[in-house]
Amino acid sequence: MPTQTEKFSLATNGFTDIHDLTPRVSAALEKVSMQNGIVTVFVVGSTAGITTIEFEPGLRKDLPAAFEKLAPMNMRYHHNDTWGDGNGYAHVRAALLGPSLVVPFQNGTLLLGTWQQIVLIDFDNRPRQREIVLQFMGE
Amino acid sequence: MPTQTEKFSLATNGFTDIHDLTPRVSAALEKVSMQNGIVTVFVVGSTAGITTIEFEPGLRKDLPAAFEKLAPMNMRYHHNDTWGDGNGYAHVRAALLGPSLVVPFQNGTLLLGTWQQIVLIDFDNRPRQREIVLQFMGE
Amino acid sequence: MPTQTEKFSLATNGFTDIHDLTPRVSAALEKVSMQNGIVTVFVVGSTAGITTIEFEPGLRKDLPAAFEKLAPMNMRYHHNDTWGDGNGYAHVRAALLGPSLVVPFQNGTLLLGTWQQIVLIDFDNRPRQREIVLQFMGE
Repeated sequence: MPTQTEKFSLATNGFTDIHDLTPRVSAALEKVSMQNGIVTVFVVGSTAGITTIEFEPGLRKDLPAAFEKLAPMNMRYHHNDTWGDGNGYAHVRAALLGPSLVVPFQNGTLLLGTWQQIVLIDFDNRPRQREIVLQFMGE
Repeated sequence: MPTQTEKFSLATNGFTDIHDLTPRVSAALEKVSMQNGIVTVFVVGSTAGITTIEFEPGLRKDLPAAFEKLAPMNMRYHHNDTWGDGNGYAHVRAALLGPSLVVPFQNGTLLLGTWQQIVLIDFDNRPRQREIVLQFMGE
Repeated sequence: MPTQTEKFSLATNGFTDIHDLTPRVSAALEKVSMQNGIVTVFVVGSTAGITTIEFEPGLRKDLPAAFEKLAPMNMRYHHNDTWGDGNGYAHVRAALLGPSLVVPFQNGTLLLGTWQQIVLIDFDNRPRQREIVLQFMGE
């Protein structure tokens, strides 16, 4: 049984809102009962991304500030000319971060650091219901 | 048959040129006839990268503008002292974006959003013939 | 034997120190004796990241300069209010780059370009002993 797909959805606030997914990924790993392999954490959609960070209140302000510098919300974006939805900045940030993260596991445990959490960052300019895919491969 | 490798090459214009790879990846998935698993989309070389974006004309201008801010073409780069090829900016952009993207599939279909396309971005300062590797793992 | 885990540790200097991991990954691939598949290169911890770059002296200055622009060391970070450890910039840089890279291999060889090396970048503000996980999947 080399592949198992788990999905869940998550309500976000948008505006570079950061959510810790680690408990969900760990619980899913326990459920699929693989011992060794990888999990691909993937967010469906083009205005959110996945990475790891120490999930603590300071960085939850610092990382959005870095994204604001990288792709400011209130700059002019051609995307907004196309759709008028005002979230051009969110598309640019999501493309830079990427929608996918692969994490190895061994003996049934994710090989993360103690202060390293898997996070979803939702850049969109409104609350969203996000669909997350966990694709487990292993044995 | 857990692994299948597909390769194709693609002519680009360079200068942060963005190409939609989704139709090629979908066609390859059909051909390998796996139902559930992951595909690693990988670009060979150090001046291009892979991500997802909504592939529409506005963002095809906005994303290059963001990269120009991040690593401007006409700044001084030590890389150019080494090789004199003037593409130091392209190496820096490619390293920040990354050459690899992992996308899950289920029931023979890539689990992308409707407005989420897999793209190659070629940062080099000349047209290139790019080699793309699609590594399918699954069942 | 679809999954094999290799681990090694590496002494770094921190301060956006770049290390070429390619020889270690190639040697491990030879040892696991798989022919076709993927390797996930993962760094444990939240102040380092993995990508590819042409590993030459010029870019080893240019890439740190780009990160200094993106998330300057001496800016104010809320993370430093939390912990007082002064490495807020390192957490932000690592989250933007990501801790994980997936590289395909075929016929026992990594499918990298000639001038494309797998690198660890250690952003922390002190020397570290880093743990790297290589998760091989294939046949």
